[in-house]
Amino acid sequence: MRDYTDLPQKVNIIEVGPRDGLQNEKSPLTIEDKVDLIDRLSKTGLQHIESGSFVSPKWVPQMANSDQVLKQIKRKKNITYSALTPNLKGYHLAKSANADAVAIFASASESFSHKNINCSIAESLKRFESVLNEAKRDNIPVRGYVSCVLGCPYEGEISAQAVFDITQALLQMGCYEVSLGDTIGVGTPLKCKQLLQLLLSQIDASRLALHCHDTYGQALANILTGLQEGIFSFDASVSGLGGCPYAKGASGNIATEDLLYMLNNMNIETGVDLSSLIKVGASISHKLNRKNQSKVGAALSA
Amino acid sequence: MRDYTDLPQKVNIIEVGPRDGLQNEKSPLTIEDKVDLIDRLSKTGLQHIESGSFVSPKWVPQMANSDQVLKQIKRKKNITYSALTPNLKGYHLAKSANADAVAIFASASESFSHKNINCSIAESLKRFESVLNEAKRDNIPVRGYVSCVLGCPYEGEISAQAVFDITQALLQMGCYEVSLGDTIGVGTPLKCKQLLQLLLSQIDASRLALHCHDTYGQALANILTGLQEGIFSFDASVSGLGGCPYAKGASGNIATEDLLYMLNNMNIETGVDLSSLIKVGASISHKLNRKNQSKVGAALSA
Repeated sequence: MRDYTDLPQKVNIIEVGPRDGLQNEKSPLTIEDKVDLIDRLSKTGLQHIESGSFVSPKWVPQMANSDQVLKQIKRKKNITYSALTPNLKGYHLAKSANADAVAIFASASESFSHKNINCSIAESLKRFESVLNEAKRDNIPVRGYVSCVLGCPYEGEISAQAVFDITQALLQMGCYEVSLGDTIGVGTPLKCKQLLQLLLSQIDASRLALHCHDTYGQALANILTGLQEGIFSFDASVSGLGGCPYAKGASGNIATEDLLYMLNNMNIETGVDLSSLIKVGASISHKLNRKNQSKVGAALSA
Repeated sequence: MRDYTDLPQKVNIIEVGPRDGLQNEKSPLTIEDKVDLIDRLSKTGLQHIESGSFVSPKWVPQMANSDQVLKQIKRKKNITYSALTPNLKGYHLAKSANADAVAIFASASESFSHKNINCSIAESLKRFESVLNEAKRDNIPVRGYVSCVLGCPYEGEISAQAVFDITQALLQMGCYEVSLGDTIGVGTPLKCKQLLQLLLSQIDASRLALHCHDTYGQALANILTGLQEGIFSFDASVSGLGGCPYAKGASGNIATEDLLYMLNNMNIETGVDLSSLIKVGASISHKLNRKNQSKVGAALSA
């Protein structure tokens, strides 16, 4: 466990507000509003923006217009605009919308896998194989998500070994990185540390990211733990967009502004400009007619 | 910097909601409502509840009825019901209301001291001397607060040495403990660590507490830092009562529920029951007609 004098000096922030955030917001956004959000985020210095999802609109109506969104954004060089693709059909749609990268969504929990994507963990890997094969041919990088790494809404405790197994499988199948999701935000620093220590005993930190939901207010403390274990990629959502389908009234992802505030003040580089980001967060919160879930945003834009 | 396997095994939570929390809430509470809040808190296992403040009602009207509150609560053995006393007059009032302990409020920032209590740091120490002398005679323990330990709304940066000097002075004058206040919540783990390392080089951890405001969402990460440095007393406010007079729309103290959730899940004992506390937080949020600022509370009582 590293001292603060020995933390990663540079951190990658993966902005997931336009996907993981918006898909959990009540008010749907128009294509124009989503494009505007992503275009504004593109000017903050962020280098990876998850911009949509090619799941069935039956399940996630908020993401129905992802193809139009990806086609209409003003792309900037050096920014990766990615999209979630649950299967080969989704992958083809993402590819024709020119997604720079795609993401597949697996789970460390059998029950969650069944409820969320209607198949076992093993079956999900089979399903992803075709996506990974095509993406390899097309030279499109694939990011893996693993959900429920610190707990499951159906099973409760999830063993670190189960997380290790699915993470390792995704990496071996060709994912360039696996984002470890505390999907329901139940993780605390001790458990987060124990999980990371097991994973990092055999996986390089450059292949892992942390995706912390702030359902119980623990996200930033868990990210600090991640930094102390050597993790340097973190998912976050501008103005804390999103929520938790398993806890009504709960918060979404860690707010990008709050994460950035901590990193800036610990002299950790990200390339992202906080004041620009605060403006984007205030604007999207206003548009969605919701309270700004970033505490930094709420304090500085009041 | 301690590993999580070597953190304090038992933590004291000092509940400051009825004082630091309520004095920053817009809606004033009746005496009955305050008594009810404190009586409910008394049943959660908390052992120290800051229950009022004997400052001039001209400055803090929300605390005007502290004497009645302290007289009407149902006292439990083993719980310390304390009150803030800015001067000898306040001390006499607290004493006649049977406060079990009193607290004095100093600052590490000259500018904040002038604006907040209208005198220099040195003058404030003089003023506190008479309180400490009488309290010693009366056998009433005195807690010291130091504000602005990680930054000041007027001066910005505050040197760790300035914090050390005032902390040491208060301890030498007879305070049993000094609560280090990140009054405007600007602290981040690196700075918090640097401050604590200086203080702990000459002061025992048993004489220090951390008082973190969550203005910028950093409070729990700073508390984790405190634990890693060996601190084992933390101030917190049920349902995150309060706000920040220096940032409209900002959060108050760290919510006691969110702190407790982390400690419980890291196997650190507090003696406080989370589910009882969540009920108190939901009830007071409802009474104040405000959103529950505890993320744990919001997620679990929706």
